[in-house]
Amino acid sequence: MSQPAARIVLASRPQGEPTPENFRLERFDAPEAGKGQVLLKTIYLSLDPYMRGRMDDRESYAPPVPVGGVMDGEVVAEVLESNLPGYATGDLVLAGLGWQTHGVSDGEGLRKVDPALGPISTALGVLGMPGFTAYTGLRMIGKPKAGETLVVAAASGPVGSMVGQLAKHAGLRAVGIAGGPEKCAYVRNELRFDAVVDHRDPDFPKRLAEACPNGIDIDFELVGGEVWQAVLPLLNRFARVPVCGLVAHYNGGGAAEVDRLPATLGRILARSLTLRGFIVYEFADLLPDFLSEVAPLVKSGEVRYREDVVDGFEKAPEAFIGMLRGGNFGKLIVRVAPEPTA
Amino acid sequence: MSQPAARIVLASRPQGEPTPENFRLERFDAPEAGKGQVLLKTIYLSLDPYMRGRMDDRESYAPPVPVGGVMDGEVVAEVLESNLPGYATGDLVLAGLGWQTHGVSDGEGLRKVDPALGPISTALGVLGMPGFTAYTGLRMIGKPKAGETLVVAAASGPVGSMVGQLAKHAGLRAVGIAGGPEKCAYVRNELRFDAVVDHRDPDFPKRLAEACPNGIDIDFELVGGEVWQAVLPLLNRFARVPVCGLVAHYNGGGAAEVDRLPATLGRILARSLTLRGFIVYEFADLLPDFLSEVAPLVKSGEVRYREDVVDGFEKAPEAFIGMLRGGNFGKLIVRVAPEPTA
Repeated sequence: MSQPAARIVLASRPQGEPTPENFRLERFDAPEAGKGQVLLKTIYLSLDPYMRGRMDDRESYAPPVPVGGVMDGEVVAEVLESNLPGYATGDLVLAGLGWQTHGVSDGEGLRKVDPALGPISTALGVLGMPGFTAYTGLRMIGKPKAGETLVVAAASGPVGSMVGQLAKHAGLRAVGIAGGPEKCAYVRNELRFDAVVDHRDPDFPKRLAEACPNGIDIDFELVGGEVWQAVLPLLNRFARVPVCGLVAHYNGGGAAEVDRLPATLGRILARSLTLRGFIVYEFADLLPDFLSEVAPLVKSGEVRYREDVVDGFEKAPEAFIGMLRGGNFGKLIVRVAPEPTA
Repeated sequence: MSQPAARIVLASRPQGEPTPENFRLERFDAPEAGKGQVLLKTIYLSLDPYMRGRMDDRESYAPPVPVGGVMDGEVVAEVLESNLPGYATGDLVLAGLGWQTHGVSDGEGLRKVDPALGPISTALGVLGMPGFTAYTGLRMIGKPKAGETLVVAAASGPVGSMVGQLAKHAGLRAVGIAGGPEKCAYVRNELRFDAVVDHRDPDFPKRLAEACPNGIDIDFELVGGEVWQAVLPLLNRFARVPVCGLVAHYNGGGAAEVDRLPATLGRILARSLTLRGFIVYEFADLLPDFLSEVAPLVKSGEVRYREDVVDGFEKAPEAFIGMLRGGNFGKLIVRVAPEPTA
């Protein structure tokens, strides 16, 4: 018996900030699971900044979503029907289903979610792609050493909060950058960073310098724009900059009236800096390390996290647009269906 | 008996391109070698692009030359008097004496030049700092793999020519960038790069793309400016960019009408690029490796080099100014005094 289902497709490509008109909700009948397939029902849909890049018709690390195509994204889902060995009805899985309430998978990119590790929504956040991004970028590119200073912006968000907490765990001075007093208080008091600076402060560059009396050894770059301008002069010799997001640039922003490239290149040369872009999939083989190291820290409360759960599948576009403006607080997740009761 | 000597000091800081008025030749009596010192007589003075940076009152990897101070630089010199154990009158040494015909050294940074390795002037070029810069940047940051494509600009110069020849030796496709037909012919025919592109060609970016049908895996960056703009879109995923010079920016140039930083940061992210600034001194412990690996290649003729020798100490400023305009051809060296006859 077919299930009534819905999906959100890219209706048109955004010019700058996405608007609701760039998305379209479509209703359809969910297919049945074919041979070697599972039929999945989405419980949680993850909304992440990288999705903005997929909306542009521009070469990036992944192909763009075609106009009319389902928006990319990861979900936690329940298996409704299974013709795929290893998966049974009722299993909870992580899947790259996109913005859909239902869909089938042939097992590619599918992974079981272990509810013993924590609430299943964490598979999209603190124990999922954002947390793993923080872990791999810090370990493989940041190469943290006790006593060094690390800076991360979007520090109340899912990647930034993990970066700073892991840095503290490794004995570094963790300095967060966040927007507004509420987020700053959370970073300082709940996440227990050593210092936090509000990027909306008119004296932001000065405040950041004060928060980093020994300069910056690692800048985990998620934002670009004015954050990068403030960080650049503070970077110590041999500083490492894992570049994993450029939120300030995603809607076509981040450009100045003058050419800022010579200053950045000049500093790379003068300070022997390392800038290294990365996508978490490069380090996929570290996933077992990540889960075994970090899940216990989350369970014990040493690593804290916050989720921003929006109810209702049709709210996804609005929530996503707000996130790009910095309007959410914590890992943004859409609850598409209630969690199954055990 | 004191020796009549001369030095060239920084008379004033340049605005943009240096002019002859930024330099002043001073005559003085050479000091005698004090306790633990040697008195040196310069034979060859090396002129290198990095010296332009030292003329600015701006923080870089080395402190600026003070106004009135002797211009920085390396020389090959003869020991005239020695009160320093291990050095004898007549020894040939490499010393950081600056732009001086004579000077004393307490041994810091002093190194004997072995005439058996090659002509003693090569200690300033192919077997000196420029060659060693090419060797270390390529090995430690470029991490070349056979079959990859490497691009280097200023390919007829002392660093670029070594980078390309070492890359070829390691089985890479070496693509050079040079200015004008004479230098391009030298790079292609004498240095035997796989391809060479003239950056003065009106279709330079297109020509570079044609010369790199498989994209670029290593860009050994010495120039910045328009060269970097042409290289950027061609860089493959995981490409490495040792940044070791930015000649296009040294005289305050290299800036565009628009902000080019977002495009560079965006590409770093999208392609998982590594940009890494470096100064050769970071890798000083590789000097024995360099000399043992590369000196035989120079001797056998597999690695070729070209020197541009200017006669007369007082010509140094003019030669230096011309080099920054790309006017020289090969490693620029000033012959300050004749080589001692054996």
